Amino acid sequence: MTSIISAQDYEEMKKLASLVRFMNSTGHNPATSGNYSLRSKTLPDTAFISESGINKSKFTEDNFIPINFQTKKMHPDYLSSGRKSSDETDIHLSLFQITKTNCVLHSHILDALLFADLFQGLPCATVEGLELLKGFKGIKSHDLKINIPCFDNTQDIAKLAETIKPKILAEQYCFGILLRGHGLYVWGESVEEAQRHLEVFEYIFKYYIHSHRGK
Amino acid sequence: MTSIISAQDYEEMKKLASLVRFMNSTGHNPATSGNYSLRSKTLPDTAFISESGINKSKFTEDNFIPINFQTKKMHPDYLSSGRKSSDETDIHLSLFQITKTNCVLHSHILDALLFADLFQGLPCATVEGLELLKGFKGIKSHDLKINIPCFDNTQDIAKLAETIKPKILAEQYCFGILLRGHGLYVWGESVEEAQRHLEVFEYIFKYYIHSHRGK
Amino acid sequence: MTSIISAQDYEEMKKLASLVRFMNSTGHNPATSGNYSLRSKTLPDTAFISESGINKSKFTEDNFIPINFQTKKMHPDYLSSGRKSSDETDIHLSLFQITKTNCVLHSHILDALLFADLFQGLPCATVEGLELLKGFKGIKSHDLKINIPCFDNTQDIAKLAETIKPKILAEQYCFGILLRGHGLYVWGESVEEAQRHLEVFEYIFKYYIHSHRGK
Amino acid sequence: MTSIISAQDYEEMKKLASLVRFMNSTGHNPATSGNYSLRSKTLPDTAFISESGINKSKFTEDNFIPINFQTKKMHPDYLSSGRKSSDETDIHLSLFQITKTNCVLHSHILDALLFADLFQGLPCATVEGLELLKGFKGIKSHDLKINIPCFDNTQDIAKLAETIKPKILAEQYCFGILLRGHGLYVWGESVEEAQRHLEVFEYIFKYYIHSHRGK
Repeated sequence: MTSIISAQDYEEMKKLASLVRFMNSTGHNPATSGNYSLRSKTLPDTAFISESGINKSKFTEDNFIPINFQTKKMHPDYLSSGRKSSDETDIHLSLFQITKTNCVLHSHILDALLFADLFQGLPCATVEGLELLKGFKGIKSHDLKINIPCFDNTQDIAKLAETIKPKILAEQYCFGILLRGHGLYVWGESVEEAQRHLEVFEYIFKYYIHSHRGK
Repeated sequence: MTSIISAQDYEEMKKLASLVRFMNSTGHNPATSGNYSLRSKTLPDTAFISESGINKSKFTEDNFIPINFQTKKMHPDYLSSGRKSSDETDIHLSLFQITKTNCVLHSHILDALLFADLFQGLPCATVEGLELLKGFKGIKSHDLKINIPCFDNTQDIAKLAETIKPKILAEQYCFGILLRGHGLYVWGESVEEAQRHLEVFEYIFKYYIHSHRGK
Repeated sequence: MTSIISAQDYEEMKKLASLVRFMNSTGHNPATSGNYSLRSKTLPDTAFISESGINKSKFTEDNFIPINFQTKKMHPDYLSSGRKSSDETDIHLSLFQITKTNCVLHSHILDALLFADLFQGLPCATVEGLELLKGFKGIKSHDLKINIPCFDNTQDIAKLAETIKPKILAEQYCFGILLRGHGLYVWGESVEEAQRHLEVFEYIFKYYIHSHRGK
Repeated sequence: MTSIISAQDYEEMKKLASLVRFMNSTGHNPATSGNYSLRSKTLPDTAFISESGINKSKFTEDNFIPINFQTKKMHPDYLSSGRKSSDETDIHLSLFQITKTNCVLHSHILDALLFADLFQGLPCATVEGLELLKGFKGIKSHDLKINIPCFDNTQDIAKLAETIKPKILAEQYCFGILLRGHGLYVWGESVEEAQRHLEVFEYIFKYYIHSHRGK
């Protein structure tokens, strides 16, 4: 435990690390993929981003790197460590800049890809009519439409991190985005809420994939 | 353990709470969904309904609220607790009013939705010809038809709780009902029988979904 | 442990009971379905048949009833016990009469039903070309055809137990039979071989179901 | 632990044996199928090949047989043991001859068969466009094509072991091959890399199978 990390933040890191290991065991992180982050409750403008290249079955609360999400710079105390945050750090930083999220999960779950493929060429996947939509924060009825912004995959993460911003801000309710052929980013105001939102997305994905197949 | 709860009722609560946690681990309660109830063996006209907003992985025998299923009123000893029974309490109360069930399970399992979709626009899903139908109480042959009443989803639970009554009473054999886009209510004369009926429903759902897809 | 049961037989019962609980945990026995048996190594013409109505998650080596498979009579020492062997006992007895099997498993696994449906109206399901066929006793190549006799479901078990005999005897290689809408009987010369054959059947079922669906 | 095996090799055998048991629990080795190998770090031209006929749930670091991959002869110290390496040993030996792999896994996972069937009659399965391709060693973008050589199944393993060589050498990136109706060979420069490559293959297989089905 690095001394710059408060007990309060460290507690959240433990919770998230536990979720990462669980997600790994249920297909979200094949081949060491996936990345995760938390907003610091004590350090200004700071996000804790998961370290690059860690086997997620062994991910712990000590595998986070503090980054200033405005300047995009690693905390000075970590510069000499030789450690590196995820290649997709910029996506996380954008989300901390423009939303109130405190926790971001990035999953490669296959259903996210199959679901996104049902909406090829469209800027959003629009879902509606499921009781479980009420698992999203603030949603009180199944009888509404939720847009999930979709983006083409790219290796230019810095550019993608800017592209997603206006699309997310354009939605009244936005809890996640899809990268085609790549995966899902999902977030919440706590680790628990991020996990709840993830469960809603997984359910939606499966429902649409299977419904589509039956037709 | 609240003093108004008899040892006999508390034993059943333990059994049901254990089943709730198992069901949670197998996809019945995504995003904290689902609700559960028992008929008291010792208190008159009383149902124990699961508390609202509990993460089902942590559900225990102490997460039940006693409600009079005729008056729909919470037991006076609980009024000052600040605790609240499930938003779908009225459905459970209706089932205790009109059937002999002692245990009700409400699952959001995705297969219930996909199955109900195969019978769109029909008042019932009719199933037949499966040996496993004999898992339903009183069924001695695969060679009969069972109707499962289906209802459109709504946020008006009080109204829905009345709508379901005549449909359930109209069936000779009725072990569960489906809410489209929402889930399954299933019941039995004991926790064990409710679970057995749930297993029959899950099997039926999968059989019809997969059979339909192959065609 | 009843005194008429030899240590040798009891050892096999432990192995089979352990397999029953494993099979239960993997979907072979929904709603307390399924039944199992062993040929005694020490008592003449005796099969040990699983007891009726036991929840398979709690099945133990003490849940077997000795039956003479020629006379179909329960062992005299068990007559006053009030215990009853499976309703499908006669199927097991037929298999001990006409084959060299020492262990019979009856599974309700859904894939057995979906697979049998691909061969509707045919007396056999014929499979070929899979390397895993070599998991069946005596099969040395993927390049052959195996017939799996299929029967319509019925509640007249005594009659079914006779109907299956000539169909099984007509096949050079026969490791199991299918009951449409009901399940699979599979057997082997030991508990281990019966399990291995079960794994081959499950693999075949899935392969054909998924291949068919893709077309 | 046989004395000819170095501590360094034995450590790798432990890792691989642990992976074998995990793979067995996740459907890669139905009915005792599958075989595995390591290149010795200390003995010249030596591969450790898994023993024939071992139930993979009980596979340990002591179930490997040292074989010279140039001469194809078993290490002299093992000749009198009566033990035998896998029937498919020659495939492993070819891979150690022509690639830099240090670890080979052979899985019968059903998805490998269903995937290969999508490319019937073609010499290779060509995949592209998935972010997870970056899980393969040296791949830095989703935007490329990877060929997976496919071969018809045969019982003539010696011949097959020669047939695969030029096809593997013809590919710039080759991490595995498919045998139709049989399974997948996958390899890596370490046990960890072989497992990572396996996870990429499983993901690709599922993606293509499900995408194809939706069409």
